[in-house]
This record gives sequence, structure tokens and C-alpha cells, in this order.
Amino acid sequence: MDSLAELVDTLPAGVVATDPATLENYRYDWSRDTGAGTPVAVVRAEDASQVQAAVRWAAAYGIPVVPRGAGSGLSGGASAVDGGIVLSLERMRAIEIDTDCQVAVVEPGAFNAEVKAASKEHGLWYPPDPSSFEICSIGGNVATNAGGLCCVKYGVTTDYVLGLDVVLADGTLITLGGKRIKDVAGLSLVKLFVGSEGTLGIVTRAILRLVPQPLPPATLVASFESVVAAAEAVVAVRRTLRPSMMELMDRATINAVEDFAPRGLDRTAGALLVVQSDAPGEARAAEIAVVEAACEAAGATEVAVTDDPEEGEMFVAARRAAFPAVEARGALLLEDVGAAVPVLPDLLAAVEEIARVHDVEIPTVAHAGDGNTHPIIVYTPGDADSERRARAAFDDILRAAIRLGGTITGEHGVGRTKKAALPDQLGEDVMALTRRIKDALDPAGILNPGAVL
Amino acid sequence: MDSLAELVDTLPAGVVATDPATLENYRYDWSRDTGAGTPVAVVRAEDASQVQAAVRWAAAYGIPVVPRGAGSGLSGGASAVDGGIVLSLERMRAIEIDTDCQVAVVEPGAFNAEVKAASKEHGLWYPPDPSSFEICSIGGNVATNAGGLCCVKYGVTTDYVLGLDVVLADGTLITLGGKRIKDVAGLSLVKLFVGSEGTLGIVTRAILRLVPQPLPPATLVASFESVVAAAEAVVAVRRTLRPSMMELMDRATINAVEDFAPRGLDRTAGALLVVQSDAPGEARAAEIAVVEAACEAAGATEVAVTDDPEEGEMFVAARRAAFPAVEARGALLLEDVGAAVPVLPDLLAAVEEIARVHDVEIPTVAHAGDGNTHPIIVYTPGDADSERRARAAFDDILRAAIRLGGTITGEHGVGRTKKAALPDQLGEDVMALTRRIKDALDPAGILNPGAVL
Repeated sequence: MDSLAELVDTLPAGVVATDPATLENYRYDWSRDTGAGTPVAVVRAEDASQVQAAVRWAAAYGIPVVPRGAGSGLSGGASAVDGGIVLSLERMRAIEIDTDCQVAVVEPGAFNAEVKAASKEHGLWYPPDPSSFEICSIGGNVATNAGGLCCVKYGVTTDYVLGLDVVLADGTLITLGGKRIKDVAGLSLVKLFVGSEGTLGIVTRAILRLVPQPLPPATLVASFESVVAAAEAVVAVRRTLRPSMMELMDRATINAVEDFAPRGLDRTAGALLVVQSDAPGEARAAEIAVVEAACEAAGATEVAVTDDPEEGEMFVAARRAAFPAVEARGALLLEDVGAAVPVLPDLLAAVEEIARVHDVEIPTVAHAGDGNTHPIIVYTPGDADSERRARAAFDDILRAAIRLGGTITGEHGVGRTKKAALPDQLGEDVMALTRRIKDALDPAGILNPGAVL
Repeated sequence: MDSLAELVDTLPAGVVATDPATLENYRYDWSRDTGAGTPVAVVRAEDASQVQAAVRWAAAYGIPVVPRGAGSGLSGGASAVDGGIVLSLERMRAIEIDTDCQVAVVEPGAFNAEVKAASKEHGLWYPPDPSSFEICSIGGNVATNAGGLCCVKYGVTTDYVLGLDVVLADGTLITLGGKRIKDVAGLSLVKLFVGSEGTLGIVTRAILRLVPQPLPPATLVASFESVVAAAEAVVAVRRTLRPSMMELMDRATINAVEDFAPRGLDRTAGALLVVQSDAPGEARAAEIAVVEAACEAAGATEVAVTDDPEEGEMFVAARRAAFPAVEARGALLLEDVGAAVPVLPDLLAAVEEIARVHDVEIPTVAHAGDGNTHPIIVYTPGDADSERRARAAFDDILRAAIRLGGTITGEHGVGRTKKAALPDQLGEDVMALTRRIKDALDPAGILNPGAVL
């Protein structure tokens, strides 16, 4: 392919890889999307001008560009496309902390955990915390508008993005927003690019708002006989309170996590809630008391509270280990359905019923305080019937979320694995509007084709 | 005009007004934009279907539609257009509080204060608080992504909008988002419409996130010899703290407010800071202590602290009275420039210099904790030289904000009075992108033509 030689020549040595082993390495994100193609090249850009050069080349030849951060996405948003290039931002990892402005200026390949660590050196904090924060990139976080455990009190990625540099579909580099906190000059373009999953442009720099480090939290752990009972406690708490964390694990997850790395969790519990308060002074005890009372009213079989942050972190780490722990049990289909908080018990009950009907194991964890759940559908690789039942359950869960007025994705993104259900959630008119914006920004459709739309 | 008769016939009696007195009443918002035209009709819609009918009619005949909330806008975003209609949402004022979901479902004509009051009945709070909250509408707040005094801790309008119903340029009614807190399915369209100033669609319903009522605040008032010294205290505080309010008034504003409604403010102070903390327990005293130390280090001549919320509210009310108080002194040109917080002293110094150079009175207030300032340029109506100097100062202040890496509008919107400066801030490429989105959503350009773009 002559055009490919041109790309290799355009960029410095070592930036463009075309060897089969590298191409294979960049086909999948963590979703292991079976529809992933094989790229013709992987471009590991070192700066924005190289991103521009690659996109200009792709635009000239009409070649698909799949942007990629750390490859930890769970919806196939970074699945390679046959005949396209993968544009990896993994080498662009600079982080600069501006303490006077309380912002981090970050390149997209930097890991979330690296931004947190750099901020912490200055007593500052970047709140959004996907469970994968140690291995996911800020670029991916921006692309999916990533959430996490602290969102219930501290919000999601979009709440912290003040500015973006973006390479558009024709290679133009634009700068949006800045270090100023309030700015309503022109359309909210920063917000439009956050969550656009690489379909509208490629982020080459983000200005992220930082806040003071939170206080060490108090942690409450409550056991329930059922996930629905635990969810009812969540609904009651959220009528009056925003704890700094409110996570749920069902029995299957508890046992998977204990098998994976034993921490002494109660394997007989139907569900565990892990709730934290980082409120200052006496407000902390008051918040924990509200949570405790709600758990008891919802029939908690055991409630324990600790002010020791390390002991608390042990439970949170157990919760974060859910994906890798369940992954040890088979191949996975990962859900990310959500609903309004009061609907959480119904949504979790629906997932249990779907697991029963299709005879599929579906361990479930949830950012319960936000109504966002992660049913993890387990199947046996190579067993066609197991996989068929898993896929049927996957689709049924998406349908249940929509039926309950919820969403097919709370924080992972639509990517490729959930896009078939998107029109059912958004409806024809919103899909048409989405298409109009996509066409306006990427008329040739080269940016992450097949994702979202 | 035959088409106008068709509009009158299409809608119920009393919805469409064409009498000259009504047309005159709907020409201006609070900016008293001298470029405002005269509409051919005012449509006071009672529900979304009437908004659709009016927009369909306008689309059929290519007639401009200027959406209008309470008419309290300060940038001419609701200035009438010759030959167009004004589409007023003032009759659509329903408010429904969903306590389980902690949201308010609100029609666009409801006042911000009405949403606050309805929420308070259930122990809930809608934070965004423009100074005009008693007379501004939620629709206008959404259109401008309005801010206010509490933003420094609690964020701006977009942070609270979970869902929108929007009538598009062809009359289609779409529903975006909902009562769920986290949702990344599809593009961030809710966020795109927030702050779009009626140029992309007309909001007919908003789902607003509510939070628990804040605690009654402690208030600190500090006097300084100069605005720059006060601003330096702000910069120091904001390195480590987000107080729940951090407002600045300069000497001219203090005196205007005292003339308007005496409250015993120190007329000799160069600037006053009014700072609040609503942190719980001992954290409140700790926050106030940080602020007090910063003020003293910056050379405060007097610092007073009160835990009495009513006494504190007296100072806040004085700050809110700035616009009406200064309005008593002449005709006004209202600025809304902002910058990153550390640049605040430079921005305020630049405003003082511009006032001196053009020999214009420019009382200035600021949401100082956010770096957002409101220089209020006073001139003598009917005095051509006074008005010429005021306009020159207006343009110079916009230029100064851009030169300092700031924004021409932090919360009021671009509207018509600031649009000439928008390309200087955003640059050609971002303007072109903005135009592409506008054209995709409103190809005939009937929605609020002349605003923003």
C-alpha cells in the first residue's frame, strides 16, 4: 500500500508500526470485542503535531482512525477496524500541576493514577476514580466521560474538564476552554467532546480541575440477605445524603473476590454495601449514623463501622477487584446499566431474574449510590450454548434498563458492544440529531467508525 | 401579513399578541441593547406543543424566533429581531419535586427562586444562584449556563442539569437525559444545549439535580485599601480552599449600594470581600481562620466574622443589590469578564486603568473566588461623548480579558452585546466549528439569529 509508506515517511522512525505482532497487540481493548478488526498500522504519536499528521494522512486517503488510550475500555470503543489505523496516545503522558490555578495540564496517555499521584504531591486531588484507575488513561476517561466510586459525591469526568486540545477530522488542532473556572463564551464545546468516544475528534491535552485532598474516610460495611434489600437501604440513604462512596457487591462477587484474594468477607451474605463518609468533624459520625439506621431498617444482618482508613481501604480494594476476580471464572460480557436511584432495587431484581431465565452466572457490583450497576455475565469460552445464553442475557439486561427508564451505559461508553441498543434508548429523533452533529464534524466518517453510531 | 394570520389561527386565543404595546414590551432584555428590533408577534406559549407549532410555522416561512424567559438577560440574548417573533416561555412555570430522585422537573418559565422555594419545602436545594435569582427564569439560566454566588463551591447550571426537553429548529420535540445521575449513552447533548443561548433549540422542560439544604453559613467581611489587595487575598485563599461564597465589591459599588439602601458598609474602604463557609462542625471555624489569615497577610484594614446567618445575609444582599444600585446612577454597560483566579488582580487592575484612561466610572463587583468580574460601566444617557467613552471602555475591557487568557463572559452569555469580541477569544477554527454545529442543527438560521454568532 503506497499510502502506508507515505505515512511511515511522514512520521519519525519508531512512531508507525506495521509488523503483525504489534498490529495484533492493538486489536482489542479489555472488552475483547469479537468484532474487532486488524489495523494496517499502529501510530504511537509523541505529540499533537504527530496526531495531526496522522489524521491529515487518514483524511487524504479516507482511512479509519481508531484513537486509543491505555486499552482498558470495556465497550469496544478502541476495537481496531480492518483497513484502519490505531492512533495510540500512550506515549503522550506529560503531567503539569498548576497549584495557583488548582489544575492539572495532562496529555491523554497519562494514567488516571499518575494524575492523582502528581496532584497529591501538592495536597491536591483529581477525584474521578474508575475502578481501573491504576491502568486507565485520562484520554480514555475523557472519551467515555468516565465515572468511578467517588462520583456519588464528587461527580464524573466532565465535571472536572476545564479545557481540551482536540485534533479534528481534517487535522486541525483546536484549543477549547482553559484554566478559568467559569466561561460561557460560545457553545459548550468542551462538554460536547467529553464522552464522544473518539468519534468527533482526538484529545491531545486536557486541563483538569483539582480540589483539595479529601479527609481520610470512615467506612461502614453492611451485610444483607439479598441485593434488593441492600438496594433499598441505598434508596433510603440517598433521599437525604450524598456519602463519599456507596458500593454494592452481590454474593457471587463476594465469593469470586474471596477466591481471588481472601480478605475475610462474609461469603454467606446475599449482598454487601461498602459506604464511606469523608465529611469533616461531627458531620462524619452523623452521616454514618444515617447510613447505619437505613441499613438496619432495610434488614441488614450485620453492620460494622471503622474509622481506620486502611481497614476501610481493604473493603474498597475488594470491590475494585471484582472485574479481575470474576475474569478468573470464564469469559465475560460486561454490563454498565443504570437507572434513577429509586429504581435500583427493580433493576437488580431484573438482572437476577434474567440470570435465572437464561441459566447464566451474573455476579453484580454497583456504584449503588448513583444507580449505576455492573452485571458481569460469565460464560465458558468455546461453549457455543453458554455463549449464546450469555449474549441473550446481555441483550435482556440492556432492554430491562431501557424499560425501567434507565441507561445502557452509565460510565463505560457505548463503544461497539452496546451500540445496537442505543437507538432503543435514545429514539429515532435523538439518533438523527446525533448523526447530524457527527456528519458536521466528521463528514467522511473516518473518526472511530463503528463506535457509538 | 397572511402568514401571521396563520400563526394566530394555529394557536389558542390569547397566545399570540400583535398589538404595538405588547410588541414594544418584548423588544428588550435587561441589557437594553440599542440594536434590538421590533417583533411582528409575541407568542406566549402555554405548553411544549404550542412551542412546536410556533417553530413549525416559523420554519415554514423562514421567520426568526427569539426565545425569551423572564427577560432578565444582561447580554441582549433575548433582544427582539425585526420581522421575527419573540417566543416567550413565561407562562410555562410548572415545578414538580421528586424527593426520591432528588430532582426538580421544571418548565422554563419558572423563576430560579421558585425552584429554590419548592425544593426547600422538601429539605432540598437547587444551588445555582444568579444575583437576579428572584426574577430570572430557569429557561434563561439553562440558555446561558448561569452562575452566581455559590458557584465557587457548588458549580454552575450545567452541573445540575440531568435532562432537557428541547424543540429543534424544525419543530421536533426531543427528550434528552432523565432522572438518572450517570448516563454516557450517546453524545453529551444535554450539555451542548446548556449555554447555547437559544441558538440550537428551545428548552421546554428541565430535570434539575437537587442536593440537601446547606448549613447556615458563617460570614467574614474584610476591608482593603485597594481591589488589587483584596484580589490577592482571594488568590491566596483559593490555593487551598473552596469557600461557599467569595464576593468582592469595590469602593464605587459600596457607595452606590449605600446610597441606594444604607446598611452601614464602610464607604472609605477601597474594596470589601464577603466570604462565607457552610462547612460543618469545626471545619467551618478552620475555613474562616484560613480566610482571615489570608486577608490579614494581604493587608486587610479590618476583618469581621459573624456566625449569625441573618447578619451575614445583610452583606450578601448588599452585594446582590449592586446592579440596581448602580443603575440609579445612569445608563449601564454590563461586563462579565473572567480569568483564571491567579490573574484576578491583573484583571481588576486593568479595569481600573481603563476607567482612568477613558474617564469613565466603572464600579466593579466580582464572584472573586471564581475569577469572574462584573465591571459596570456608567454613562450619561443622551450625552454622546459619555456614551462614546463608555463603549470604548467596554471594548477595552473585553480585550484586556482576552489578553490575560480570560473570557469575555463568565456567566451572562455572549448574546448580542459581546458577540463582536467572540472571534478574538475563540479564534477562527473554533468559530468555524461552532458554525458547523449551528448549521447542522438550524440550517435555515431561524433560531435566535444574531445572537452568539
